Amino acid sequence: METTFIDWLRGRVAADPRLEVALGDDAAVLRPPAGRRTVVTVDMLTEGVDFLLGAGASPRAVGHKALAVNLSDLAAMGARPEAAVIAVALPRAEAAAIARELFEGLAPLAARLGVAIAGGDTNTWDGPLVVSVTALGSVPPGAAWRRDGARPGDLLVVTGPCGGSLLGRHLDVAPRCQEALEIADRLAVHAAIDVSDGLSLDLDRLLRASGVGATLHLADVPIHDDARRAAAEDGRPPLDHALGDGEDFELVLALPAADARALVAAPPGALRPAIIGAVTAGVGIEAVAADGSRRPLEPRGWIHGDG
Amino acid sequence: METTFIDWLRGRVAADPRLEVALGDDAAVLRPPAGRRTVVTVDMLTEGVDFLLGAGASPRAVGHKALAVNLSDLAAMGARPEAAVIAVALPRAEAAAIARELFEGLAPLAARLGVAIAGGDTNTWDGPLVVSVTALGSVPPGAAWRRDGARPGDLLVVTGPCGGSLLGRHLDVAPRCQEALEIADRLAVHAAIDVSDGLSLDLDRLLRASGVGATLHLADVPIHDDARRAAAEDGRPPLDHALGDGEDFELVLALPAADARALVAAPPGALRPAIIGAVTAGVGIEAVAADGSRRPLEPRGWIHGDG
Repeated sequence: METTFIDWLRGRVAADPRLEVALGDDAAVLRPPAGRRTVVTVDMLTEGVDFLLGAGASPRAVGHKALAVNLSDLAAMGARPEAAVIAVALPRAEAAAIARELFEGLAPLAARLGVAIAGGDTNTWDGPLVVSVTALGSVPPGAAWRRDGARPGDLLVVTGPCGGSLLGRHLDVAPRCQEALEIADRLAVHAAIDVSDGLSLDLDRLLRASGVGATLHLADVPIHDDARRAAAEDGRPPLDHALGDGEDFELVLALPAADARALVAAPPGALRPAIIGAVTAGVGIEAVAADGSRRPLEPRGWIHGDG
Repeated sequence: METTFIDWLRGRVAADPRLEVALGDDAAVLRPPAGRRTVVTVDMLTEGVDFLLGAGASPRAVGHKALAVNLSDLAAMGARPEAAVIAVALPRAEAAAIARELFEGLAPLAARLGVAIAGGDTNTWDGPLVVSVTALGSVPPGAAWRRDGARPGDLLVVTGPCGGSLLGRHLDVAPRCQEALEIADRLAVHAAIDVSDGLSLDLDRLLRASGVGATLHLADVPIHDDARRAAAEDGRPPLDHALGDGEDFELVLALPAADARALVAAPPGALRPAIIGAVTAGVGIEAVAADGSRRPLEPRGWIHGDG
């Protein structure tokens, strides 16, 4: 199958000046942008865990998501997307059709965000669909947004409303790459993470990595309309969905107060950022309710793999 | 599971000056070597197709192989290994134990060949074991060995005996990285490919990519002892095993005649290279028997995925 598929693919992958050797050799050869670091991340999606084929998720949607979640990791580093390679295990019965649809799903996103498709590995088996994307990006030396740089006094910003992503946004992921680059250009970001597993859980990871705590103003957490819809269905508060659903693929940023306010005052593109709290010298997240009462917040979320 | 695993892993992954941001953030940040190109390749191994857990293959052996086959692709480009990221789908029942053994299987190879483990993605599911490794290497600009550079008059060299790898070498893969670098240093290589699917099949791919043909001297094809053992078991000629079994992970090189002879006269390390034929302006492979008779050779092999 794969020779045919690679031939088919070669005809569809646009020539890219960053590729010295493109698709179809033992490996691809990239011209890394001069004077920049290489950022690399990998995410694997598996049928039955990350998506259900047939139940809403087409191979095309899976292709889009598999690339998008990796680009979201690049955005969380403040990195510019450069290239991606894709490895798949395809259910034997429909291998060729699934492979093509996966590619058709990810190609528009790759084109829009400037990602060169550099290579892949197509395998056929009797198991479920597995898609593993490795994305490469670039940043200036020392400029990558890490998780461990948040400092007491920083304000915490989430780049958009959260919750209820299972109603559709968990597939139709819009990685914040261009927005992250604009932010990196204009503002100081001390630490960043993307919301893959849940706003409170990913925030907690950032805080732990930085060795700091935070106050979180619950009334300021932006709640997605999907969170309200999900709440109407299951009776749980919309805020719970916003704090714990995950797969929002917004960014959580820790910035100096002036930069946080500047970001919210003039957000890039269609971003709807909100200041949700402040970094403290403490430990853990202290939730502040609308009435001023305070309680420790237990981080919640959906644990995906990570590394 | 994965937080525990990543913590466990962090303690075991050696600090590497090439990593500006190591394991555990949204992505890793690498310092690419100045003035060199980035070489990238991905290979996914799936249980039941590429290995059978329990039937000879331990998770440790799978970990080694998953990294080794990628490093073999780097060797086939004449590239120096730099870094790798690993994504896995782990059978739920023994996820933690398998993850650790996979890592223990690949770590010694990574250390020996100078590969920085830069990140990963651990997933747990109810399916079989899947391991996807993406390897990054580097080469000087324009120096990567491609498949499409073979020229009539070049001699064809295979870097060691082939056949019978299923008797054990298909797991205990020894990628020819250091040897490739020494060859690249000393000699002109016009085209290269690694023998993953079968000597005749991979040679045919190199020839097709280059738009050339070849004569193959059957008596000069180096036959591995494993091929003779396999032949004794199944009654097929040892040469058939050498030409079609695959997973030898030797390199096939097309070089100017003088360079080919120099390579065979003074091979790097423990390499046992042999000149097996010559590139022609024709099409396809013409096999020359010991008695001088000629016939077209039908390429054979085991088709893995590729890209």
